[in-house]
Amino acid sequence: MFIRRCWYVAAWSDELPADTLVPRMIANEPLVLYRDREGQLVVLEDRCCHRLAPLSKGRLEGDDLRCMYHGLKFNREGICIEVPGQSLIPPKARVRCFPAVEKHGWIWIWMGEPALADEALIPPAVGSDDARWTLRHGQMDYDANYQLVNDNLTDFSHLSYVHAKSFGTSEEFARTRPSVTRIPRGIRVQRWVTEPLNEHAEALLTDRLGLHNDEQWQSYDFLAPGVLLMYSAFYPPGTAQRLNRGEPGADDGEPISANFTSQAVTPMTPRTCRYFYSWGPRAGAGADETADLMIAVARKAFAEDKEMIEAQQKVMDHDPTRRELPLSADLGPTRMRRVIDELIEAEQSEPPHASADTAGR
Amino acid sequence: MFIRRCWYVAAWSDELPADTLVPRMIANEPLVLYRDREGQLVVLEDRCCHRLAPLSKGRLEGDDLRCMYHGLKFNREGICIEVPGQSLIPPKARVRCFPAVEKHGWIWIWMGEPALADEALIPPAVGSDDARWTLRHGQMDYDANYQLVNDNLTDFSHLSYVHAKSFGTSEEFARTRPSVTRIPRGIRVQRWVTEPLNEHAEALLTDRLGLHNDEQWQSYDFLAPGVLLMYSAFYPPGTAQRLNRGEPGADDGEPISANFTSQAVTPMTPRTCRYFYSWGPRAGAGADETADLMIAVARKAFAEDKEMIEAQQKVMDHDPTRRELPLSADLGPTRMRRVIDELIEAEQSEPPHASADTAGR
Amino acid sequence: MFIRRCWYVAAWSDELPADTLVPRMIANEPLVLYRDREGQLVVLEDRCCHRLAPLSKGRLEGDDLRCMYHGLKFNREGICIEVPGQSLIPPKARVRCFPAVEKHGWIWIWMGEPALADEALIPPAVGSDDARWTLRHGQMDYDANYQLVNDNLTDFSHLSYVHAKSFGTSEEFARTRPSVTRIPRGIRVQRWVTEPLNEHAEALLTDRLGLHNDEQWQSYDFLAPGVLLMYSAFYPPGTAQRLNRGEPGADDGEPISANFTSQAVTPMTPRTCRYFYSWGPRAGAGADETADLMIAVARKAFAEDKEMIEAQQKVMDHDPTRRELPLSADLGPTRMRRVIDELIEAEQSEPPHASADTAGR
Repeated sequence: MFIRRCWYVAAWSDELPADTLVPRMIANEPLVLYRDREGQLVVLEDRCCHRLAPLSKGRLEGDDLRCMYHGLKFNREGICIEVPGQSLIPPKARVRCFPAVEKHGWIWIWMGEPALADEALIPPAVGSDDARWTLRHGQMDYDANYQLVNDNLTDFSHLSYVHAKSFGTSEEFARTRPSVTRIPRGIRVQRWVTEPLNEHAEALLTDRLGLHNDEQWQSYDFLAPGVLLMYSAFYPPGTAQRLNRGEPGADDGEPISANFTSQAVTPMTPRTCRYFYSWGPRAGAGADETADLMIAVARKAFAEDKEMIEAQQKVMDHDPTRRELPLSADLGPTRMRRVIDELIEAEQSEPPHASADTAGR
Repeated sequence: MFIRRCWYVAAWSDELPADTLVPRMIANEPLVLYRDREGQLVVLEDRCCHRLAPLSKGRLEGDDLRCMYHGLKFNREGICIEVPGQSLIPPKARVRCFPAVEKHGWIWIWMGEPALADEALIPPAVGSDDARWTLRHGQMDYDANYQLVNDNLTDFSHLSYVHAKSFGTSEEFARTRPSVTRIPRGIRVQRWVTEPLNEHAEALLTDRLGLHNDEQWQSYDFLAPGVLLMYSAFYPPGTAQRLNRGEPGADDGEPISANFTSQAVTPMTPRTCRYFYSWGPRAGAGADETADLMIAVARKAFAEDKEMIEAQQKVMDHDPTRRELPLSADLGPTRMRRVIDELIEAEQSEPPHASADTAGR
Repeated sequence: MFIRRCWYVAAWSDELPADTLVPRMIANEPLVLYRDREGQLVVLEDRCCHRLAPLSKGRLEGDDLRCMYHGLKFNREGICIEVPGQSLIPPKARVRCFPAVEKHGWIWIWMGEPALADEALIPPAVGSDDARWTLRHGQMDYDANYQLVNDNLTDFSHLSYVHAKSFGTSEEFARTRPSVTRIPRGIRVQRWVTEPLNEHAEALLTDRLGLHNDEQWQSYDFLAPGVLLMYSAFYPPGTAQRLNRGEPGADDGEPISANFTSQAVTPMTPRTCRYFYSWGPRAGAGADETADLMIAVARKAFAEDKEMIEAQQKVMDHDPTRRELPLSADLGPTRMRRVIDELIEAEQSEPPHASADTAGR
């Protein structure tokens, strides 16, 4: 069961060049993505309505897509406009069409009824088109339900254990709790980090980021279905206490340094998902080198998450009757799961207007 | 659900040398094939009645087959004739025995009650034993239900798309419809092909077969469970119109050239099948070279079918609730599926005589 | 369905060095094994009670084990003694703890309620700690239910076929029946072997063991869940007849030579198991060389069993409705299956005392 009235990250913009058909699975729906002659995104169901062959094995003809099994041709709305050897085209000859938007360096797809697509719901990610930051990015596929990755990203207490050696995170993350507040379609997680990294921390990174004694203010929004947008800023020792561990404001002075990461967890099937991430410092002198260093450490750390989460999924699959035991660290995951549950319930109790796309399910 | 009172192609004759046990799965039944001392075919259930070990891991002893787990010995009728260390052999100690016939270069197995096996039902394939044709052959396994391959072979409109580059088929195949008539246990598909191949056509093949301007008469029978027997003949330009696009008769003159292909689709499990094919020109000068060329192109083309059909099967498996949308090109597949459905229904409503093999299920 | 009130062989002693977490699956339960600071065995459920991550990816801290996902720490009884950032530890925060004993070179785990664990039920295996024998050992994993391996080990009639070429076993094993008697928690199988090995027998082994004319007395106990303890002794020709094919006693003189094998079949999941085996002659001059030779032949033979049994499992899985046909050779397997069925029934009808570990299921 997935949220449908929602924008999902399907790809990095540059994963979809012209004249290319890209198959994607999102929320258990097979999709084919391409660009029309003007570069505009087209996203159709990746399943011909005739014999159920994948349209991603088809042929682009101008703005249209021809199934290369028996030749049906579909326009960019998914309506069949040609059946070879047959003059009458049945009204049912169409495939679903999905609204898609290119923004913040990502391709976002709306999986609900097209008439309800609202671009204002696209999370304000920071992408490579934002000149304020110097970002690097990567991605990985998980053999796990996407909610297990969401759980991981909404509770950073795991940093003290899973990433003790990569990020060099101290036990402060596990020992103290962040503030977790509900925001529209998500949660906001905020905290000060005042203890130094442990002895495993990458020396180069510590030096470069000046992490020896600085205090870090960390704030992220986590938005349905699985988008993390995090701002981290470093301040001189004593700042946290001076601000009473509250959020630094405009009057509290510029941070010594700052960085931003945008991440997205996109369910493919109930047992697989794709994880997209970018990270990097403020643009400026030395930013490229710092960004390269940061993403290298992140790659190592995210591989640690993957190993743990896929192992967790296997344990769960081995005996699906076993229940989890919620603890105080689970406030973020618990609230975020409730956000998603509520969105799904809302979809089910509020059917779309009769005017909404009837091809929607 | 498979037809049982039916001859299935199990192998090429030369796949079964003397002193060899060959395991095969046909219509979801595990079988073991071997030759007795006179070279006659023996086909037994590949599952010892004692502990269910596969007899294909057994040992040939003259005309008999010994299970090499605990030593039970079966004769060529599948009756157990020795239980080591036990003088009384239980009457239930037997495995099913299947009628088998070697004909047209293929080994055919009757999967129904042995008493009902009728050799007259073996399709009149053309095999390497037919001196009139110079054939080459090949085979491939599909990860797909055999009916999807049958669908492909009973509707050649796909040639214009799937094989646009290998066979160089023009869009004529998709744009115009063949005649499809019902025949006993199958359908007959006939048509004239009057347009030239497209620019992708293998130049060598076009030259060799004289396909530049010739018109092609194509006629094939497709017989249950999945046997295609096709005759193609090339005539001078204008012949199709002169014959009012009807079948050329003996009075209409010899074709410039002709070729024949025999093909068989054998279900292994509900999700796998094996596809056997031979193809070649009339015997005569240059026939060997032409046959080599033809089969090379066919191999390429059949790999294209496999790619599309296995992708189609995956789409179907991903969401089995999705229905196909029949179009006018589907006349052949629809009629052929009806033939198979009727044969299965007939089997179920007409139980065999009490005299029929009681080992049958 | 597995026996739970039972000792299962989990590993060879030397598979568990200090400072190491070893994951094992036994009777479908995921376990993690380690040694405390004094070398004593600790066996816990390999599934954190919090988020179900595997504890085998955790960190040993003295005698305790910390989950490295969110940092919960468990003591050697499986009781959670630390939840980072939380002062109150919920009483449910615990994982199952399993009694474990190191004996005869094996690590044995009790899968039932800890309070019922009775070391007297550990089978009297012969291990490398027994100076009377010179043993070699090995192991292999089966893609098969463990009862199929038990069946194989409780009916040696298969030696005449499966191992005709490795052990060189004659058909005597299949042609004549051993004595099979019921003993507590198992069966005893005894027989004389008076015929020579066949022409395939490893010449070196025959020479070394003096197997040309000797008669062999073979006696083994097979105990739940799947432990085989076999003693074989060789006597001069005529001994079997002289003893009226009965068991040699102390008054019947020393055998010419003898050997012992301990074997254990441990179910992992319903479709996988692990097979442990050791074998070797009496300690003494030349014993090392003989033991090496014996284990080399055994390895070859046990690979033959694996091939046959895994093929048998596949046939069974292909059509689970097929029933086996019991024959007189099946006395051992049938009795042993009954032993196991009775033990399972007894567990279900005799619930443990209220004092037994409440964490048991």
